[in-house]
Amino acid sequence: MGTENEIINSISPCFQRFWLLDRNITFLNHGSFGACPGHVLEVQAKLRSQLENEPLRFFGREWEPLLDASRSGLGTFLGADEEDLVFVPNATTGVNAVLRSLRFAADDELLTTNHEYNACRNALDFVASRSGAKVVVANIPFPLRSHTQIIETILGKVTAKTRLVLLDHITSQTGLIFPIQQLCRELQQRNINVLVDAAHAPGMIPVNLREIDPTYYTGNCHKWLCAPKGAAFLYVKREKQPEIRPLTISHGANSKLTHKSRFQLEFDWMGTDDPTAYMCVSEAIEFMGSLVSDGWDGLMQRNHELVVQGREIICSALDILPPCSEEMIGSMATIPLPKVFDKYTHMSLHDRLFDEFGIEVQIVPWEIEPKLLIRISAQIYNTLEQYEYLGKVLRELAFILQTA
Amino acid sequence: MGTENEIINSISPCFQRFWLLDRNITFLNHGSFGACPGHVLEVQAKLRSQLENEPLRFFGREWEPLLDASRSGLGTFLGADEEDLVFVPNATTGVNAVLRSLRFAADDELLTTNHEYNACRNALDFVASRSGAKVVVANIPFPLRSHTQIIETILGKVTAKTRLVLLDHITSQTGLIFPIQQLCRELQQRNINVLVDAAHAPGMIPVNLREIDPTYYTGNCHKWLCAPKGAAFLYVKREKQPEIRPLTISHGANSKLTHKSRFQLEFDWMGTDDPTAYMCVSEAIEFMGSLVSDGWDGLMQRNHELVVQGREIICSALDILPPCSEEMIGSMATIPLPKVFDKYTHMSLHDRLFDEFGIEVQIVPWEIEPKLLIRISAQIYNTLEQYEYLGKVLRELAFILQTA
Repeated sequence: MGTENEIINSISPCFQRFWLLDRNITFLNHGSFGACPGHVLEVQAKLRSQLENEPLRFFGREWEPLLDASRSGLGTFLGADEEDLVFVPNATTGVNAVLRSLRFAADDELLTTNHEYNACRNALDFVASRSGAKVVVANIPFPLRSHTQIIETILGKVTAKTRLVLLDHITSQTGLIFPIQQLCRELQQRNINVLVDAAHAPGMIPVNLREIDPTYYTGNCHKWLCAPKGAAFLYVKREKQPEIRPLTISHGANSKLTHKSRFQLEFDWMGTDDPTAYMCVSEAIEFMGSLVSDGWDGLMQRNHELVVQGREIICSALDILPPCSEEMIGSMATIPLPKVFDKYTHMSLHDRLFDEFGIEVQIVPWEIEPKLLIRISAQIYNTLEQYEYLGKVLRELAFILQTA
Repeated sequence: MGTENEIINSISPCFQRFWLLDRNITFLNHGSFGACPGHVLEVQAKLRSQLENEPLRFFGREWEPLLDASRSGLGTFLGADEEDLVFVPNATTGVNAVLRSLRFAADDELLTTNHEYNACRNALDFVASRSGAKVVVANIPFPLRSHTQIIETILGKVTAKTRLVLLDHITSQTGLIFPIQQLCRELQQRNINVLVDAAHAPGMIPVNLREIDPTYYTGNCHKWLCAPKGAAFLYVKREKQPEIRPLTISHGANSKLTHKSRFQLEFDWMGTDDPTAYMCVSEAIEFMGSLVSDGWDGLMQRNHELVVQGREIICSALDILPPCSEEMIGSMATIPLPKVFDKYTHMSLHDRLFDEFGIEVQIVPWEIEPKLLIRISAQIYNTLEQYEYLGKVLRELAFILQTA
């Protein structure tokens, strides 16, 4: 296993060398936790040394300019005013901060979809159960024909009681890009606030918050921006900021400072923590944008094309059709596995691929038949040969299952 | 300034060499953010490399044993069952998690003291304002004669409506050790729950949670245990755990796992974050306990004796009396500054000491006369000469102020 992986994974050393990823693993799951380039980790290590050199000087004098500079780079990247952005450790925390700030009444309806990420669905259920509000689920089919299906299904569940809609920008299990700009417009025209869980979007597809114009939008920086773990952001529309409070109420609540909004004063300081991941976000954006000659547009296009090719390879190996059009995915592609794989659980199939074949890929349990999906990712360090290897292994496993 | 500091700070190189602290600074404020030894930071860096080597393997297989091992070491140190402990980034977040989990009614009284840390007081005010509950403040004098004053003042404010008492184990501004075991017993005998903010206690004084037996107890590991930034814990009494939920509701809320309590399943995973600071807590405990021959008892005793001597030096330099007995402080000592210093603000005095004399020490604004307090810390890397230098500088400043 080690040798075959080493051969496959040595084909694209020009980009792999920027990461610390194990060469003995065919790593096709950038989507779950991202992967941080060595250069960005080095910048973070320097910041940590700077902190430990004089913690009071760091938090008292150096911390805010470093945080603001990184936020500024992020704002430019996202097409957002930096005044409207705060850092949070992950998108799930961003979703929780918004949900737990809002007050719902017993009659309110909180709308989401069956593609929503489990952690955030739990947060929605939590605030609903506390207030007596009702969670309404729009069931979007998968496989899926068109964006129109997504929009119609969601709008079809809107009622006069709908107070908030929680939507993924890109769904976690199924890798679908939701037409979020159109959804935000349609819903806000109906006076409904939209909380967008964009855990996977920034760095996978172009994000312009001025164009999307959501009510609330939270995304991870440690996934497709390749920042260190624990870096994410929350955007809140200016006029909604006074009612959104951080989960940890701290000094910002009664700070006498006036150079920033209460929103930023509160979110920027939630007790002593390691802030260096946040401070590396702009560095990660710059580094990743420098890898190919046409910058971020080129990087995202390249990753998209690679995952589309990877999907074709796997579909062809398993003799199946892709579940949605190319335009509906970014650099993650989810494929329903043939029913014969249902003899595995998602964990047992993952573990077999990993332990026996050295392949790291996400296997997703799904609610209806077929019960297993496979989700591949493509980041610049990946190569076509890796998907070919996965396709070959899946074909072998399917053959064994069919003939067993 | 550089030279004088270098001479003063080179006297105790045998312990200073374990830290990254700037030798040009007389660093007398371990209390605010702690300081992490280079060895512990190296262990953390290795864990981070391990994470980035294969993020899925790390979070899927390696994360839980590493987290549990560190929690186990912490449990032993705190005299607590590891089942009753979860990690949080800081004590303020621990306080918020408890407060925001509890439900208060409009008539309830939430009792605290005037020595309570501002951030946690804000959290208390927040939950009070949301529920209509009332915050009641017990005013404990400073200077202070005895522990009896603390107990009597707090118990004197208890009424039939008192639902919860939020107390510091060691106060932040005034460095006082509260008789927390006796307070917990007295209050719980009256059926009142006690939330202890022990931000400064673990590693400064012996903490045995079985003996203290609080309802809720949260403490920092990055202060006096010298763990990396962003490491703290929350203890919740077994029977209270089902009602305490993390601030970020995530996968744990509906996890099908049964090898841990819901309390731990929920708190252990609050979205993707850098978990390496938590994983270094047991390493930090072991490392710090190995520095002197008599382990943690010796270390804490040594730090206590050093700060008591430091306090004497400063009081003598300013010709004032210490505000409380030696037994009431650990390794932080707060001294009210003579009224002549009131011409400074806490920030302007801090900045003058830092910028002109290279001294890092906490200056605390206080509510009544005298309006400025100075808080010194003693960690093993500190030396008597550093307090002598501070005393000399303060005496000079007082002289200038008096003759101006």
